[in-house]
Amino acid sequence: MCRWLAYSGSPIRLEELLYRPRYSLIDQSLHSRLGVETTNGDGFGIGWYVPGAPEPVLFRGVGPAWNDPNLREIARSTTSPLFVAHIRASTGTPVQQTNCHPFRYRNWLWAHNGSIRDFHRLKRDLVLAVDPELYTSMTGSTDSEVMFYLALTYGLRDRPVAAVERMAGLVESVGRAYGVPDPLQMTVATTDGDRTWCFRYSSEGHSRSLFYSTEMSALRRLYPEQESLRGLSEETRLVVSEPLGELAGAWQEVPESSYGVIQKGDDELGRFEPAMP
Amino acid sequence: MCRWLAYSGSPIRLEELLYRPRYSLIDQSLHSRLGVETTNGDGFGIGWYVPGAPEPVLFRGVGPAWNDPNLREIARSTTSPLFVAHIRASTGTPVQQTNCHPFRYRNWLWAHNGSIRDFHRLKRDLVLAVDPELYTSMTGSTDSEVMFYLALTYGLRDRPVAAVERMAGLVESVGRAYGVPDPLQMTVATTDGDRTWCFRYSSEGHSRSLFYSTEMSALRRLYPEQESLRGLSEETRLVVSEPLGELAGAWQEVPESSYGVIQKGDDELGRFEPAMP
Amino acid sequence: MCRWLAYSGSPIRLEELLYRPRYSLIDQSLHSRLGVETTNGDGFGIGWYVPGAPEPVLFRGVGPAWNDPNLREIARSTTSPLFVAHIRASTGTPVQQTNCHPFRYRNWLWAHNGSIRDFHRLKRDLVLAVDPELYTSMTGSTDSEVMFYLALTYGLRDRPVAAVERMAGLVESVGRAYGVPDPLQMTVATTDGDRTWCFRYSSEGHSRSLFYSTEMSALRRLYPEQESLRGLSEETRLVVSEPLGELAGAWQEVPESSYGVIQKGDDELGRFEPAMP
Amino acid sequence: MCRWLAYSGSPIRLEELLYRPRYSLIDQSLHSRLGVETTNGDGFGIGWYVPGAPEPVLFRGVGPAWNDPNLREIARSTTSPLFVAHIRASTGTPVQQTNCHPFRYRNWLWAHNGSIRDFHRLKRDLVLAVDPELYTSMTGSTDSEVMFYLALTYGLRDRPVAAVERMAGLVESVGRAYGVPDPLQMTVATTDGDRTWCFRYSSEGHSRSLFYSTEMSALRRLYPEQESLRGLSEETRLVVSEPLGELAGAWQEVPESSYGVIQKGDDELGRFEPAMP
Repeated sequence: MCRWLAYSGSPIRLEELLYRPRYSLIDQSLHSRLGVETTNGDGFGIGWYVPGAPEPVLFRGVGPAWNDPNLREIARSTTSPLFVAHIRASTGTPVQQTNCHPFRYRNWLWAHNGSIRDFHRLKRDLVLAVDPELYTSMTGSTDSEVMFYLALTYGLRDRPVAAVERMAGLVESVGRAYGVPDPLQMTVATTDGDRTWCFRYSSEGHSRSLFYSTEMSALRRLYPEQESLRGLSEETRLVVSEPLGELAGAWQEVPESSYGVIQKGDDELGRFEPAMP
Repeated sequence: MCRWLAYSGSPIRLEELLYRPRYSLIDQSLHSRLGVETTNGDGFGIGWYVPGAPEPVLFRGVGPAWNDPNLREIARSTTSPLFVAHIRASTGTPVQQTNCHPFRYRNWLWAHNGSIRDFHRLKRDLVLAVDPELYTSMTGSTDSEVMFYLALTYGLRDRPVAAVERMAGLVESVGRAYGVPDPLQMTVATTDGDRTWCFRYSSEGHSRSLFYSTEMSALRRLYPEQESLRGLSEETRLVVSEPLGELAGAWQEVPESSYGVIQKGDDELGRFEPAMP
Repeated sequence: MCRWLAYSGSPIRLEELLYRPRYSLIDQSLHSRLGVETTNGDGFGIGWYVPGAPEPVLFRGVGPAWNDPNLREIARSTTSPLFVAHIRASTGTPVQQTNCHPFRYRNWLWAHNGSIRDFHRLKRDLVLAVDPELYTSMTGSTDSEVMFYLALTYGLRDRPVAAVERMAGLVESVGRAYGVPDPLQMTVATTDGDRTWCFRYSSEGHSRSLFYSTEMSALRRLYPEQESLRGLSEETRLVVSEPLGELAGAWQEVPESSYGVIQKGDDELGRFEPAMP
Repeated sequence: MCRWLAYSGSPIRLEELLYRPRYSLIDQSLHSRLGVETTNGDGFGIGWYVPGAPEPVLFRGVGPAWNDPNLREIARSTTSPLFVAHIRASTGTPVQQTNCHPFRYRNWLWAHNGSIRDFHRLKRDLVLAVDPELYTSMTGSTDSEVMFYLALTYGLRDRPVAAVERMAGLVESVGRAYGVPDPLQMTVATTDGDRTWCFRYSSEGHSRSLFYSTEMSALRRLYPEQESLRGLSEETRLVVSEPLGELAGAWQEVPESSYGVIQKGDDELGRFEPAMP
């Protein structure tokens, strides 16, 4: 069980979202309100995009986010129009940097909350399905990273939603073969630095919480006096495991079994259905 | 805010107390029930005595206790008749090994839960009162370590209770001079490897929780069927920030403003009163 | 490139071999004399056997061995009749505890110095050959751990030399298939807690250095005045990547392409030949 | 014994100096050529200035610089016109972030190579001389940090050279009082984000190495074909513990007992003489 946050919009200093809000992500690392686990102290990570750079920057640590001085320095001095942050509560795999989210492959990032049930039993079959060319880029041992590489194998870079649906389909199918009930539980954020895709799904139809921020124009009409909303562009959007702050009307729940796309122009929201790869 | 545990009695494997009980100390590192902070993930430490060795062994780490594989290995393979374990929730000083409890000076150990209020303002005056010969042995930056070295300065090795009372008296007096209300909050365990002294005190008379285990003979009469109690000697005693397990009648609260001595023969319980050094 | 040490014989405090000798293993972590790399600062590990316990104890760290206070404490307070210690210089895989040697599977330990050339290219084929039952116990990402699990797959627990020869045969064969010249370079120590097997081999016939200590009786005749040799039993033997100390005649080189067995009664030395699995 | 580097001039990506050159600072962390210790693996740090920000950013780690993935990411993505980098070889004080250089006080940074001999004996007298207002900002336990706070106490922010001379004078005088011969050995870089002061001094007149880069115009005349020199402004200057790369004529030794000032307009070089505070 983990918590994550994906931001896209007007360039913003990371600390504005990581440290400032009541119930900020760093605050959630000490005591989350909606998580299955209340503490997310098994490592953390941020990946952010720098306009013009071919790859996002990755900063990950194995200690708790709440007491890391370097994270505070980086958050204070870094501005980005698109980033993904994650705090980890291990479901059994070791606490090491290569198991911290987000995972990166070239210009892509991937963060996950949830788990593959009985992963140690299903792992070999899932890993075997990863494209051998991609296999050598995996460096950690989590279910989350295997999910990322399966999605890459199934075409994440070309048709992201279909690729993630095929990944989920494979997990369901391998889980079934091993007699593991309800094998997949996930909220996922993945981005190529331009668009961001978010997913909420679980085999049992009872998925981890996920919220997206309301449109800025609506928010500004509701709260004309709120200063923090002024500088942000209409396109600015935040997707989070649990709401930051307490602004009524600021957050909407992502429906069960669905995906969303944050992009220039209208965002999308659609139904997510696992598919056989 | 931290949690600690001091054990004295029949040699026991560390894991029996650190990992096995419901509400074990490791469990408290993730979610304590009685602490001011619910998470104690800013480092940990154990100091244990090996019969015949001049000094206790110290094992301390900067990550959370709950996910440390080395701690688990050491706890599984180490047996000791006397040890002190501590999980830390920093009150502001850095998370580093030299700030992890217990602190050691020769054959002595010291663990603390609580804080000196506005320590950064009082620190210099307190440190100046430490014996210059002892000064060079301090390696960390916590209030807890300064309290230890003040107690050593005031004769901890000869008259422990009086020394800790003088330490507390100095903190009260320096606090008063700087206008800091209720400067001291503490439960402390300290031991020379033979006897263990425990203290519960706060300026405001509302101290952190502290419990000691009931006499073994009484417990065995109450629970004749309880296997875990059988091998333990009559002298076996445990002092803890919060109860392990759920055995009714197993724990008694240490009264406000008092100290206890765990030793061969009858233990002692007395009134603790800060004294001017 | 790494350095390791395997000890077997009279129970000895770990620090006697890890810290005391001139050119001790900890000293080699800062500047080894015979290694390909002069610094071995990418983590360390010790595994030691406790008589009566089903599994050896494992203590591993990701920082340099030379500055680790816990290692010093453990080495000072732990006595064992059989242990394996390792200091790591990464050949590319991440510095994390799960990549530190020795690796453990049940009562077995494994430490390796050397590498599989172009491991990232060969890795998938090698991992596929690991017994699926064993696969799930692998937690790291090194060539060394894969070598261990291949040896386990090929019967390490029953016929250790043959199993390691088959492991080496597979690496040679997969290397050949991918056009990797001289794919295997290794000195290995592996033990079940009773006997210890050591291997020195490389595809190119120019292997990393490996030495074993001369028989104690011979050493004592040569150096009757040497106190450190007195308490040690006739069976005591040490195998090391590079000699500790400067006692002339104390060390003999393990020949190229050979294995040795340290055991009760006469030790063995034999020729090592990779075999097709 | 440590190594450091201070850069000032045209904005440059950190990795250009930390990773790219032959004998780069990261390379020196594994094997320095001119250092008293060949390995500098006891932590590292970089402090860099961001135009417009009130304070420099600080990134420090306790592991070796050569294997830190976050350092590589930050170095690759950060551009700065003025930064100080340091790799540490501890002379006895603990390896912890608060002991890593550079140290920061508001807009100032301080990095040191060398030591105060018998620091544990002199420490208390030196610390007592630190301004009580500044005292509470010290968080580590090194001689280097105490030197910084003494210099701040003696007016570093107003008259840097005189302040450092008084700090050195105090160390000489306290050392003399305790019968410590040749107590001070130092090369120091300190900067306010605008100008950078460098010092080379030791009680014995045999100081650690220090070099500064030749004027860019001279270098460009010497090496008209060298691409890396083209984009750099005339004001660009580098001061280093040991030369990076192998460009003949690129480096000049800072003379014994002297200081230099890197600033807009002509740089300065002067004689350094400890003065009684």
